[in-house]
Amino acid sequence: MAMVCLSDFEAHAKKYLPKIAWDYFAAGADDCTTRDENILAYKRIRFRPRMLRDVSVVDIKTKILGSEISFPVGIAPTGFHQLAWPDGEKSTARAARAMDTCYIASTYSTCTLEEISAAAPGGLRWFQLYIHHNRAASQQLVQRAEALGFQGLVLTTDLPYTGKRRDDVRNGFRLPPHMKVKNLERAFEVCKMSPSFHSLRWHAPHETKATGLDPSVTWNDIYWLRSLTRLPIIIKGILTREDAELAVRHGVQGIIVSNHGGRQLDEGPATIDALVEVVEAVRGRVEVYVDGGIRKGSDVLKALALGAKCVFIGRPALWGLAYKGEEGLQDVLRILQDEFRLSMALAGCASVSEIGQHLVQFSKL
Amino acid sequence: MAMVCLSDFEAHAKKYLPKIAWDYFAAGADDCTTRDENILAYKRIRFRPRMLRDVSVVDIKTKILGSEISFPVGIAPTGFHQLAWPDGEKSTARAARAMDTCYIASTYSTCTLEEISAAAPGGLRWFQLYIHHNRAASQQLVQRAEALGFQGLVLTTDLPYTGKRRDDVRNGFRLPPHMKVKNLERAFEVCKMSPSFHSLRWHAPHETKATGLDPSVTWNDIYWLRSLTRLPIIIKGILTREDAELAVRHGVQGIIVSNHGGRQLDEGPATIDALVEVVEAVRGRVEVYVDGGIRKGSDVLKALALGAKCVFIGRPALWGLAYKGEEGLQDVLRILQDEFRLSMALAGCASVSEIGQHLVQFSKL
Amino acid sequence: MAMVCLSDFEAHAKKYLPKIAWDYFAAGADDCTTRDENILAYKRIRFRPRMLRDVSVVDIKTKILGSEISFPVGIAPTGFHQLAWPDGEKSTARAARAMDTCYIASTYSTCTLEEISAAAPGGLRWFQLYIHHNRAASQQLVQRAEALGFQGLVLTTDLPYTGKRRDDVRNGFRLPPHMKVKNLERAFEVCKMSPSFHSLRWHAPHETKATGLDPSVTWNDIYWLRSLTRLPIIIKGILTREDAELAVRHGVQGIIVSNHGGRQLDEGPATIDALVEVVEAVRGRVEVYVDGGIRKGSDVLKALALGAKCVFIGRPALWGLAYKGEEGLQDVLRILQDEFRLSMALAGCASVSEIGQHLVQFSKL
Amino acid sequence: MAMVCLSDFEAHAKKYLPKIAWDYFAAGADDCTTRDENILAYKRIRFRPRMLRDVSVVDIKTKILGSEISFPVGIAPTGFHQLAWPDGEKSTARAARAMDTCYIASTYSTCTLEEISAAAPGGLRWFQLYIHHNRAASQQLVQRAEALGFQGLVLTTDLPYTGKRRDDVRNGFRLPPHMKVKNLERAFEVCKMSPSFHSLRWHAPHETKATGLDPSVTWNDIYWLRSLTRLPIIIKGILTREDAELAVRHGVQGIIVSNHGGRQLDEGPATIDALVEVVEAVRGRVEVYVDGGIRKGSDVLKALALGAKCVFIGRPALWGLAYKGEEGLQDVLRILQDEFRLSMALAGCASVSEIGQHLVQFSKL
Repeated sequence: MAMVCLSDFEAHAKKYLPKIAWDYFAAGADDCTTRDENILAYKRIRFRPRMLRDVSVVDIKTKILGSEISFPVGIAPTGFHQLAWPDGEKSTARAARAMDTCYIASTYSTCTLEEISAAAPGGLRWFQLYIHHNRAASQQLVQRAEALGFQGLVLTTDLPYTGKRRDDVRNGFRLPPHMKVKNLERAFEVCKMSPSFHSLRWHAPHETKATGLDPSVTWNDIYWLRSLTRLPIIIKGILTREDAELAVRHGVQGIIVSNHGGRQLDEGPATIDALVEVVEAVRGRVEVYVDGGIRKGSDVLKALALGAKCVFIGRPALWGLAYKGEEGLQDVLRILQDEFRLSMALAGCASVSEIGQHLVQFSKL
Repeated sequence: MAMVCLSDFEAHAKKYLPKIAWDYFAAGADDCTTRDENILAYKRIRFRPRMLRDVSVVDIKTKILGSEISFPVGIAPTGFHQLAWPDGEKSTARAARAMDTCYIASTYSTCTLEEISAAAPGGLRWFQLYIHHNRAASQQLVQRAEALGFQGLVLTTDLPYTGKRRDDVRNGFRLPPHMKVKNLERAFEVCKMSPSFHSLRWHAPHETKATGLDPSVTWNDIYWLRSLTRLPIIIKGILTREDAELAVRHGVQGIIVSNHGGRQLDEGPATIDALVEVVEAVRGRVEVYVDGGIRKGSDVLKALALGAKCVFIGRPALWGLAYKGEEGLQDVLRILQDEFRLSMALAGCASVSEIGQHLVQFSKL
Repeated sequence: MAMVCLSDFEAHAKKYLPKIAWDYFAAGADDCTTRDENILAYKRIRFRPRMLRDVSVVDIKTKILGSEISFPVGIAPTGFHQLAWPDGEKSTARAARAMDTCYIASTYSTCTLEEISAAAPGGLRWFQLYIHHNRAASQQLVQRAEALGFQGLVLTTDLPYTGKRRDDVRNGFRLPPHMKVKNLERAFEVCKMSPSFHSLRWHAPHETKATGLDPSVTWNDIYWLRSLTRLPIIIKGILTREDAELAVRHGVQGIIVSNHGGRQLDEGPATIDALVEVVEAVRGRVEVYVDGGIRKGSDVLKALALGAKCVFIGRPALWGLAYKGEEGLQDVLRILQDEFRLSMALAGCASVSEIGQHLVQFSKL
Repeated sequence: MAMVCLSDFEAHAKKYLPKIAWDYFAAGADDCTTRDENILAYKRIRFRPRMLRDVSVVDIKTKILGSEISFPVGIAPTGFHQLAWPDGEKSTARAARAMDTCYIASTYSTCTLEEISAAAPGGLRWFQLYIHHNRAASQQLVQRAEALGFQGLVLTTDLPYTGKRRDDVRNGFRLPPHMKVKNLERAFEVCKMSPSFHSLRWHAPHETKATGLDPSVTWNDIYWLRSLTRLPIIIKGILTREDAELAVRHGVQGIIVSNHGGRQLDEGPATIDALVEVVEAVRGRVEVYVDGGIRKGSDVLKALALGAKCVFIGRPALWGLAYKGEEGLQDVLRILQDEFRLSMALAGCASVSEIGQHLVQFSKL
């Protein structure tokens, strides 16, 4: 089977992953409307391609928060990479470095931050954080990440409680015994969390105090994070102009427009639709990124045309890992890179700086 | 089979109920367009979720006409609960009381009002009324309900004649001989209705005088009802701003936006769409509720965001009964409650009073 | 099999008619887009039903051009009724009279006008005319119709050439040898038409002179028709405001908004959509009717709400004939009548005069 | 199997062509969204047909750049006709001449320009050009075409690199050994291209220098072309008003609105939608044509109503060739011609000059 486009990797993963792992990665909340809308919304955007513009050289490099990456696609934070490939996040880190792009390592990694760092020294990495009831544990994680050379801190805001993913509930999803949420193990040596914490079983919100996530977090906690680290803070999960404005006012350096892959509140906006509103509110004061629904190089071009500085891929990275680990993820990234470069050329753009809103229009359908 | 969401109860009911009963509960008028639109219209509403708002405590309690309920979901009036479960409306009453919410008992109950009251003393209940040719019989019903402690009188306005539900016509639907519309039996001891009354067979309207329903009812009859009882009057079946205004002017205390589950006039508006127009017309002068199409906790959140004080569920309650009687209906309510609380948290609302129109937008699709 | 709604008759006809006859009746031009749109367009119209308006008596009678009919549904002109039922148009005439409504007999009838008249003396009938190259033949037909007591003359304007109905071309459709287009036989005794005239085979327009239809007809020919008869002239096939205005200026008494059941120019407007534009242009100066896509009583209500004085049914009448001749067509009409009366009642209308545009809105979907 | 409409030819080609050839002709870029949209967009346009306008004679002739053609449908440039029929472009040329219309021969023909000319002397032909790195080779081609009596030069602008057509990648599409891109062979005798040039295998754009196409072409190269030939220059691939304005300013004689049959940048506009914008920008200063999605005579009428002077067909011509070579292509053209004439008549147009925007409206759906 030739791996020609990202759907080929999806089909492969669906066929070869254990059902419980596939279901976990594929899951969306409730009816999965938002998960699917993330993809469909890209289809409603039409290019306005320009001709005869000398695209003999197409420069796809860009910078995020001052660091150069080879093209504007990074790896979004997703959990439990060992479910996809034995080496887990170590492979992810190596692939990202090989392709010269940014990898956002999740709190819910099955490798420690130290293992991830050691696997691909010098790679550009950010660390994704959930704030827990035990603030000391969160503080320790942030400071470990900074010490290990992670260059950004991504605060996820859309998971005060876990969304209701029906298949996970039916499957009674939990990690196999030989996998661990290793970062938290160490962090919680000091704080003694209940073992059920790792199960990620769906609980009705009034029963979920035991997961350790702190649903009382507010905008003021940004100041607390600020006091812990000199890393730039990127806030993830913003979907409205109001929250975008609040994020800027609270001094973050970046915003990731995200709905958690449609895994949290179902029937919120597709991220590419929300991007428009957020970019408008931000007016260039901080960088804006987007994740969710990226399946082709031309999706990347659309996101950039609508104001994103870079996009992040979640599930496609996992499919790449599931295919051939580090090598499979590189294949996925390389396909996106080639497709992105080609779509730039066919739209008449010779460099990322030439991409702008004039390139797209929303279809009336 | 795990019961994870309301569709699981629907699938169970479809599998285990006698076809004639399933068809009766599932029936919509004509092409069932409005029945299905009630659900689809919710899908066209998108949340605008807000982040970082301290949802460690989520208070889902509310009040309807001054009575506190544990969350804003009550039981809509539907007929013939014994078709779903042997104990019929007695089980419904017990489940509603156990979950601390409001049950609207139908005129077409298969238990008497007295049996319903005795099954769950102290529960919050309203009584649903059709006005019959025999006004004395209707008066007697209203006064029995008031004497039994029912706390509201719900007048259904959208059934001057029964809608044309094709499956019921094909099935020749009528109640099994051991079930009776008991409230009317007693009422009609005084008024000698034709036995065909109970058959509910579809007649062309010019043949249906025999059903006993009075299609000559007008707004002036609200004054007559007012003269019979001190109970608050809630009017059910309103779909336009014009009728909402008339309802307020005629002194009702509440409006239920309803299209009878799509069982009466096909191709009217979905109730969640009509809610917007009714809420706008009412301008807070009376409480507005809505039924039809509620299948998830987030649907409840949408209805409240658009101005409903509370929603009522019809078919899902019957599926719960069909699953395990009182216990099954509690399962249904508990799932809705958990989902509602979770969707509030994920949308950034810590109490019902924080829910507002800013939380939603209508999708252009 | 119970005949509950018009689709039941359609399914029956599809099952029992010879394929070549079914295909001929069902045919639409080209991709059949307009044929299907005629139906779908009704689905995009939503009722705004009103409550509590005393619908104990629902008067569905109306008048067209001064003649009372029992309800606003007549029989549209369609050809070759013997393909559906041995007695052909004689049965149609009897059913229309029995149901007290108007039947528009087609030029392409398989019975003569004299046979039709004799079958149901005193019934309200209009005669549908195509203008042929041989004007004397057309004149003779008009004058025969008038002499026989037909009360209106319907000029079809949308068939200068026959539309391309692919199935008819594939089937090589032509009438079985024992059926004849009898009206024309007699008319053409004087004018010697080529026998291929009756074949109705699809020809490219440059080859179709032989069909006898005159594609050079213009608005001035209305004056010629006017000079031949005192019958009111109703013009059929109008789809634009411009042509509606011309029709009024040329002195017609009525307009039938029609696209020939989607059998002529594919991808023109659905008739219910075109009705709005025509009614607006006509401003009450002449009566406006509509055909195409009527499948339920509530479709009739929608058409009247949008300004039609009456609707005409084409294919459903043929399905009724195919089911049981005269009796089957009465069944079809009776179902539409009952459904129309019921939908009026459920929408809050006690008489046809209460039906108005306030009852409907166009869905945004 | 009767060949009644163009889909019949499509079905035939799909059944009888080698899969690799069918896939190549059918291919669209990426998800094939634009390829399919080209067709769907026509369906969203509704006619506003006019009645009683004397269509006894329907004149379908028109002129393009001063040359009369029998009806406004020409043959778009497509490659490798020998994949469809042994005689390849020679058959195409003969069919176009027989039907008295224009054939745009592709650079990627499998016959030489000389063979094409000799096959159908006196036929109206334009030559389609890609500009190569080797400008001398391109110059030679242009001058050969002019010398051979081609009457227009069509510059394709939307293929700086080949689009990503997944099936071709999977199939490893390349020409069978006995077919050659003969025009280039001769041209490249002087310039020694790499043999991989003929493979047309998909390369990521950074690897495709070897194809010989020059992606550095800009608007200034129009002036260079202008200096080489006295032929009118028609620019193909324009989709925006901005590029239409540039084309006019650079002195071209015609514009073909085209997205290369959806084979280049996926998710650009359907050509019929882009036509509206281009026609508006051009304001009659040059002729505008369109290709893509034409499947019926009424599509031609729509394109002309929206301002195209003529349309060109790509895949349908190949299906015609695949059916019966020259004869099959004539069948295709004849069907389109008959359908176009009929749709003109049914819309009330007696000559091409009567076709205008008043004939169409965009459906809200």
